[in-house]
Amino acid sequence: MADEVILLDLWASMFGMRTRIALAEKKVKYEYREEDLENKSSLLLEMNPVHKKIPVLIHNGKPVCESLIQVEYIDETWPGETSLLPSDPYQRAHARFWGDFIDKKVNVTARRIWATKGEEKEASSELIEILKTLEAELGDKRYFGGETFGYVDIALIGFYSWFGVYDKFGNISIESECSKLIAWAKRCMQRESVAKALPETEKVTTFISQCLGLE
Amino acid sequence: MADEVILLDLWASMFGMRTRIALAEKKVKYEYREEDLENKSSLLLEMNPVHKKIPVLIHNGKPVCESLIQVEYIDETWPGETSLLPSDPYQRAHARFWGDFIDKKVNVTARRIWATKGEEKEASSELIEILKTLEAELGDKRYFGGETFGYVDIALIGFYSWFGVYDKFGNISIESECSKLIAWAKRCMQRESVAKALPETEKVTTFISQCLGLE
Repeated sequence: MADEVILLDLWASMFGMRTRIALAEKKVKYEYREEDLENKSSLLLEMNPVHKKIPVLIHNGKPVCESLIQVEYIDETWPGETSLLPSDPYQRAHARFWGDFIDKKVNVTARRIWATKGEEKEASSELIEILKTLEAELGDKRYFGGETFGYVDIALIGFYSWFGVYDKFGNISIESECSKLIAWAKRCMQRESVAKALPETEKVTTFISQCLGLE
Repeated sequence: MADEVILLDLWASMFGMRTRIALAEKKVKYEYREEDLENKSSLLLEMNPVHKKIPVLIHNGKPVCESLIQVEYIDETWPGETSLLPSDPYQRAHARFWGDFIDKKVNVTARRIWATKGEEKEASSELIEILKTLEAELGDKRYFGGETFGYVDIALIGFYSWFGVYDKFGNISIESECSKLIAWAKRCMQRESVAKALPETEKVTTFISQCLGLE
């Protein structure tokens, strides 16, 4: 039986982008289904009854929830030619640490820039600090894992399409503060898997402005 | 060269308990070093410069941070006779989902019961709901993974030693609300690895009462 793979997702989700990139890196064919978060499908509610959130990866009828868990699942299920996580246990733990750091820090802080009134300035400074911590971890490496594009790159790169939102609402310029990280992001964007998964940052900025009733 | 394994920890940490249990399950010998969180050691600050938190597992001089990442690292580094995570990718993703759920929900909600003024009642109800969700996932199984004690059990069981704190400050009785979960916890406590890692709940309750200046 051929694999049936369905992804319940939203185009602007940096979490969904992770899963799309991982699937593309592994050349897994799948059916993409855009969700309306104001009117969630019964399939989404059935497949992720605990969190009721996208993205949900459905493989042969069985759901896998939470984007970084999906990335690991994809890596283990379709080993293929390239691994997203390193094979060495210590390097794996190191990659998981930074994936976890991104999950705990980046989105939580970044949301406060545009979704909360009055916290823009503080949250913007915090976000720059967080991105500088990530930049220090990147160092002079081509990708977070070294020469090869992988798990930590996938965990972070989706946020790049939101940088315009953070710049606009936080009144900052991530590009001038974190030039090395921007160079890394542009490097990632040269990969077809990333370029196809990430929307234009202007599109995300317009979307968020519309959601907030500003346009 | 023999492995040098050091654990920087705090006796009352439910996160540290995870790592202690995993090390015991794998029969890994290690040096336990109690940290004073009011006066963190230079080794802790050096080994976990990003979060500056315990537990930190130091294996041959290299740090692994974040307790669930440590549990996976221990499982991969010392395969031994028993695996903490299932070998099937789908079951692994399922276990990771519940580990992540526990990390995102249980401690965040439980802390609001004793560490925040005025939220005790709401947080207590939320905690009971969360525990009931976990109880539903457990179902009639012996352990979360089925017949074998493993990753999700390790992720959750440390909180059992804090149930006295939640009962006292939330004015609830977890035992009468979640009897199946308590039966599971007692089953886990029959394992030497768990019994040795978990302090008496009375000791934790006294400790927290003292920290809050109530005793």
